[in-house]
Amino acid sequence: MLEPVVVKPIGVVHNSVKELRRESWESLESTIVVQDRWAGALDGLEAFSHIFVIFWLHLVAEGPRETTTHVHPRGDPGIPLQGVFATRSPVRPNPIGLRVVALLERRGNVLRVRGLDAIDGTPVLDLKPYLFHYDGVPESTVADWIQKA
Amino acid sequence: MLEPVVVKPIGVVHNSVKELRRESWESLESTIVVQDRWAGALDGLEAFSHIFVIFWLHLVAEGPRETTTHVHPRGDPGIPLQGVFATRSPVRPNPIGLRVVALLERRGNVLRVRGLDAIDGTPVLDLKPYLFHYDGVPESTVADWIQKA
Repeated sequence: MLEPVVVKPIGVVHNSVKELRRESWESLESTIVVQDRWAGALDGLEAFSHIFVIFWLHLVAEGPRETTTHVHPRGDPGIPLQGVFATRSPVRPNPIGLRVVALLERRGNVLRVRGLDAIDGTPVLDLKPYLFHYDGVPESTVADWIQKA
Repeated sequence: MLEPVVVKPIGVVHNSVKELRRESWESLESTIVVQDRWAGALDGLEAFSHIFVIFWLHLVAEGPRETTTHVHPRGDPGIPLQGVFATRSPVRPNPIGLRVVALLERRGNVLRVRGLDAIDGTPVLDLKPYLFHYDGVPESTVADWIQKA
């Protein structure tokens, strides 16, 4: 039942960030270059202001992610250890990144987006339209350590 | 750069839905049984009211998803064809499911959730806390065909 699955990236991120960093992605513009064979699969995406980008954090080494169950969020020892699934840490069993971004433009097989927290060269696994009536949960509540941060 | 990545499921969904269906997941309760080795990685997740579940739609055959670039959303021929990335169709190059669910309970390596649109036996790839200040975009806009539906 729990056999590994093989995921073929459908595109790649290009931007000015060449090394891992922790903050200030909000205003960063990136392009997502989708494989030519999937260019048509983007038709209609330009009608949405925001999209989900699901990507693969390819620089997270397998060793740490196979053995790390707890982390201090944001690397801050002042925040108590949390299970990795209770955080957005990149060091997790499957380093899948998920971010809602503003879709600025689509031209053929290329998307221009703002706010993606992925470095140059990151493989993209999937793209989905963001639907606030479906994906937004204003009444949701979060852990105290996040409210204080 | 675009080499396939291998993703090892970290758990599995259990619920009363044994066959694919299109609607009425909202009130469905499911359990997510996480592998014992990752039970600790759930510590602290219970402090969040909602979580993202990222899962693998294992029943979507590779043939259709390797060749399908456009679909009628919801299988409705009255809605014009859209690129699969402009829809939440399960038939897409990588059948990755993404859903915000209410987290009702965590006991050890088992989560009880409400609203997951995945059938019994679905492999789970990742779990993340839902953070409205980060993941919610109230000002986002969607395609006309969604507003009319």
